[in-house]
Amino acid sequence: MLHFDCDYMEGAHPEVMRRLQSTNLEQTPGYGCDPYTAHARELIRQACDAPQAEVHFLVGGTQTNATVIDGLLRRHEGVLAAESGHINVHEAGAIEAAGHKVLTLPSHDGKIRACDVERYLEEFYRDETWPHMVAPGMLYLSHPTEFGTLYSLDEMEALHAVCRRHSIPLYLDGARLVYALAAESNTLSLHDVARLYDVFYIGGTKTGALFGEAVVITRPELLPHFFTLVKQHGALLAKGRLLGLQFETLFTDRLYLRIARQAVTTALKLKAALLAKGYRLFIDSPTNQQFFVLPNSEIDRLSRFATFELWGPRGETESVVRFVTSWATEESHIDALIGHL
Amino acid sequence: MLHFDCDYMEGAHPEVMRRLQSTNLEQTPGYGCDPYTAHARELIRQACDAPQAEVHFLVGGTQTNATVIDGLLRRHEGVLAAESGHINVHEAGAIEAAGHKVLTLPSHDGKIRACDVERYLEEFYRDETWPHMVAPGMLYLSHPTEFGTLYSLDEMEALHAVCRRHSIPLYLDGARLVYALAAESNTLSLHDVARLYDVFYIGGTKTGALFGEAVVITRPELLPHFFTLVKQHGALLAKGRLLGLQFETLFTDRLYLRIARQAVTTALKLKAALLAKGYRLFIDSPTNQQFFVLPNSEIDRLSRFATFELWGPRGETESVVRFVTSWATEESHIDALIGHL
Amino acid sequence: MLHFDCDYMEGAHPEVMRRLQSTNLEQTPGYGCDPYTAHARELIRQACDAPQAEVHFLVGGTQTNATVIDGLLRRHEGVLAAESGHINVHEAGAIEAAGHKVLTLPSHDGKIRACDVERYLEEFYRDETWPHMVAPGMLYLSHPTEFGTLYSLDEMEALHAVCRRHSIPLYLDGARLVYALAAESNTLSLHDVARLYDVFYIGGTKTGALFGEAVVITRPELLPHFFTLVKQHGALLAKGRLLGLQFETLFTDRLYLRIARQAVTTALKLKAALLAKGYRLFIDSPTNQQFFVLPNSEIDRLSRFATFELWGPRGETESVVRFVTSWATEESHIDALIGHL
Amino acid sequence: MLHFDCDYMEGAHPEVMRRLQSTNLEQTPGYGCDPYTAHARELIRQACDAPQAEVHFLVGGTQTNATVIDGLLRRHEGVLAAESGHINVHEAGAIEAAGHKVLTLPSHDGKIRACDVERYLEEFYRDETWPHMVAPGMLYLSHPTEFGTLYSLDEMEALHAVCRRHSIPLYLDGARLVYALAAESNTLSLHDVARLYDVFYIGGTKTGALFGEAVVITRPELLPHFFTLVKQHGALLAKGRLLGLQFETLFTDRLYLRIARQAVTTALKLKAALLAKGYRLFIDSPTNQQFFVLPNSEIDRLSRFATFELWGPRGETESVVRFVTSWATEESHIDALIGHL
Repeated sequence: MLHFDCDYMEGAHPEVMRRLQSTNLEQTPGYGCDPYTAHARELIRQACDAPQAEVHFLVGGTQTNATVIDGLLRRHEGVLAAESGHINVHEAGAIEAAGHKVLTLPSHDGKIRACDVERYLEEFYRDETWPHMVAPGMLYLSHPTEFGTLYSLDEMEALHAVCRRHSIPLYLDGARLVYALAAESNTLSLHDVARLYDVFYIGGTKTGALFGEAVVITRPELLPHFFTLVKQHGALLAKGRLLGLQFETLFTDRLYLRIARQAVTTALKLKAALLAKGYRLFIDSPTNQQFFVLPNSEIDRLSRFATFELWGPRGETESVVRFVTSWATEESHIDALIGHL
Repeated sequence: MLHFDCDYMEGAHPEVMRRLQSTNLEQTPGYGCDPYTAHARELIRQACDAPQAEVHFLVGGTQTNATVIDGLLRRHEGVLAAESGHINVHEAGAIEAAGHKVLTLPSHDGKIRACDVERYLEEFYRDETWPHMVAPGMLYLSHPTEFGTLYSLDEMEALHAVCRRHSIPLYLDGARLVYALAAESNTLSLHDVARLYDVFYIGGTKTGALFGEAVVITRPELLPHFFTLVKQHGALLAKGRLLGLQFETLFTDRLYLRIARQAVTTALKLKAALLAKGYRLFIDSPTNQQFFVLPNSEIDRLSRFATFELWGPRGETESVVRFVTSWATEESHIDALIGHL
Repeated sequence: MLHFDCDYMEGAHPEVMRRLQSTNLEQTPGYGCDPYTAHARELIRQACDAPQAEVHFLVGGTQTNATVIDGLLRRHEGVLAAESGHINVHEAGAIEAAGHKVLTLPSHDGKIRACDVERYLEEFYRDETWPHMVAPGMLYLSHPTEFGTLYSLDEMEALHAVCRRHSIPLYLDGARLVYALAAESNTLSLHDVARLYDVFYIGGTKTGALFGEAVVITRPELLPHFFTLVKQHGALLAKGRLLGLQFETLFTDRLYLRIARQAVTTALKLKAALLAKGYRLFIDSPTNQQFFVLPNSEIDRLSRFATFELWGPRGETESVVRFVTSWATEESHIDALIGHL
Repeated sequence: MLHFDCDYMEGAHPEVMRRLQSTNLEQTPGYGCDPYTAHARELIRQACDAPQAEVHFLVGGTQTNATVIDGLLRRHEGVLAAESGHINVHEAGAIEAAGHKVLTLPSHDGKIRACDVERYLEEFYRDETWPHMVAPGMLYLSHPTEFGTLYSLDEMEALHAVCRRHSIPLYLDGARLVYALAAESNTLSLHDVARLYDVFYIGGTKTGALFGEAVVITRPELLPHFFTLVKQHGALLAKGRLLGLQFETLFTDRLYLRIARQAVTTALKLKAALLAKGYRLFIDSPTNQQFFVLPNSEIDRLSRFATFELWGPRGETESVVRFVTSWATEESHIDALIGHL
């Protein structure tokens, strides 16, 4: 059986495992106060060309989003996000549980348009009743989006500009950021990301680590006492060095990028094959998630050989499915799947 | 200057003031443990023909919604509401501040359709990822809606049925409920309301009282320890008898209904006059709020004689305005306004 | 039957009622945007000699404490308070419901000592594990305390100094503040209060109003967007002018002070009589609440003529009781009670 | 340099690492829906002799406490805990952040007495003002306590009885539970734990795993929809099998117990040596944490050879220190430390 359900079906990249194994019996202080974590921080700052940035390591994406957003917002504020944004759909209300409303913007294949943000902010303050409403206090976006799509550098610059103009922080959910960096058409560098976003995270869980997300705070004054907030959110790992070790490994010799390329290459090969078979794209993604509309009969047939996700409820005659590749997907897996089409 | 901004511009109905005055120096225990409050509770139970119902008195609408919804939901649940619902727009995120997501349904002139609720609930549980999402834990609706529109009895029965079928509580925001009861076409009785809703409130603030909302709980097992929850939400009035006295007055000889008729009659007279002048309805409301599309020039001209609310941002050439009448609106006020059209 | 249960058994001072009555049918905008509220704000700023202060009017004490404290604290911070503080005992967890821990200090007859605050803050940051703990983010105190006791001006200056030294806001719960101002030994002026506290409120509910608390913010930069926070906490009164009118009346010709003196004078007369009868003070209070230890037999006997509160659980042979006077207590009531001793 | 700071300075037990390594490239579904997790659940149910129990795996202790307690309490309730309880001190206010008050009981060397719980509950409901206060909704205790001390089986039975009598759930924080099971004097079995506690967790982080806590719910009806609550609290691990694999390993051939014995044996050897040198116990602990009062001069001298924690602020001439052993502590480490005394 082949598996394309998601990009977190395996453990960690073998090099990550090797490092965890070789340091296993060393003794270091807890909570990220160890030399491995310090080194990982430094490597990330270098990769981002952001020497002043603060770097924190958390375990998972939902807890990272909840902690950062809770820290950035004041009580009367909410977070702007695409209707399809992960925080609005698949995080079980973690943002609201911390007291904040998710204010939704239209999703264009998962992306937010700068003009929609601008309009929201302008209309909000033009409405005389705004003090009775939740103030838009920051902008959340994901890159790649939940649909695997990418913002162009121009689009990001525009989103950055509107946030600066209205003095609200801009935050990037980078659960799959390294897959964006590995896309063929990518022109975005980690330095651009650090320049444009006030806070962002580089996902590890889906890209070679057992778990872990690296939060980069380029304007640390926006998140004072972040350590305590992480603890309060239950997001502080006792053996913090496990996070440091993993990111140190991923950011040595750009391992993260090699990992990501493997995922993107295999995904695009599958995409080409599905298009060649005449199947319809649900959304055109250049990264490691591919969304296609398939006849239910074909879905049922393929399900005997491979696992993949039904995206939303099953339709009458056809449905949307998602195929996901990862750093661990080998070309032979893809070839085998293509053989079954 | 004439005023049609809202239905809370005056104090209280003179009879309410008379009662407050005549009892002013009496001594009674606080927090609603006085005989006036007990009597008001009894009168409301009688008017609703709901002898088993619990009745609590709170001060304002936002605090009432936040307290009831917080009490009805478990932590993993959210509240279904129309996109235009007051809790989703104009309560400054009070629901989210208590940890719960507002799950939005399409608004049809402020109303929710039973089929939309049904579809939401069915699709929710058909999506395999539902345990990662906020569960729809109750349904909130307002009657009249934020646009003054009314549900028919059939529509309400259908909404009640879908909630029962899916075992979620049904809650009515009745900030202006008595204006619905006074509508010409109304076929709904307070007894129907008590029969169909698990919890609802009868607004006093907008309908003759200085302030106050009567929460009627027809299934008290759904809201155990409600008193403590009211206290926790800062919604417990020390001199609780002030609430009891006001509702006792309003529910003596159906004063609430006479009050409401005055508001509806004057509103409909204004509506007829505006239609006769050829102005366009923004929404067709049978109650005390009237929404019209007016040319900006006419809005500016009228503003010299009367105050009323711009509904949403001002348009290029025409805008939506809202005129509101209340128990205190006299026919002469309306005639004067009509004279200025 | 005589009543000394609490200071909120009656309605409002007759002059307050007269004003509410005489303005009842006027039309004004809601939410405190009316001229009466503006005037009340101005009168309070004058009485406090604090021309830059912001003044807001809320309905009750618990909601005021919850809203102010929620606004002053960041997420990782808690509020320091006496173990006996109202927010720690009798507000049903409203502070925690908004996400903040109440950090307790020893109570000395309801009062907090500056040296205890100093020690707490110093030990907190000397403990290496402090980033894992809730940071003391502000100091809450009540004056008079829950036991009717008063801080001297020196004690208040010391508390102010320690807060300034550690850069944490100082907040005063003044539910009964005017009874402190009327105490015989009082040397504190409203100007002192405004000089020493970053935020405080002057209670109206217990001192002549139907309801209402005036929040005075002497450092408005600490509570930005307070209006929205008030709305979010369900603490915004639609007919805000009712609050303005009441405080305008109380602050005209210092009515608040005359009201308070009546309460204190009658309380002290009762205290003297109880002491003369040989009963033991539970706590020595110079204000309108008097706490005595009485034999259970005497409590039972007195209960036939008067109502008053058992303070804590009933003891084996004797118990603590509380007698409370108010602006409405007449000397004849006290004489009657004394006659029954 | 020797290290006795805490029991989470190393990685995982070598056998745990071996298992993670050998399964690393296998593909399994996420979120704990894999066969390893299923097997781990079964092994734990068997070890507890609790075939009906639900078992969930979370990452860390603070998030486990916050999630379980949030799920067990209703909004008006708080959690009873020792003043020294971890949730009251070192979890950065995570319980309050979820809206609940920690109601403190006296700590007797970290332990709670059943009679204190009984008294609290009885006095609470005897106080007429209880509806204004946070209701005690559950009891939290830790075993071993934060001071390494243990409850006897009789004490636990008594605590269980009082909770049952008052119908409140009983929850055990078992971060170091396996060290209790390994204590010389221990008479408690995992079956007893499952019989006495409604919910408890068996810590992995401090006892052989890289991370992970196994939550055992013996009365699943108390925590419906726990999966969604875990997700909402950001406590759901994407690669859930990592937790399953680790607990499967620890519960195979009672590895957890062998691990724990090593820690306890070495701790007691150190304890005996310190006592022999004439140092004073701060608290008498039979488990892997040892608390001693040492002269500051000795602390400073020892610090050149070993790291250990100062417990609370440094005193004038002597201070409390904590030495912690773990599964990874070898006898030679202890001998070396003893050599330096």
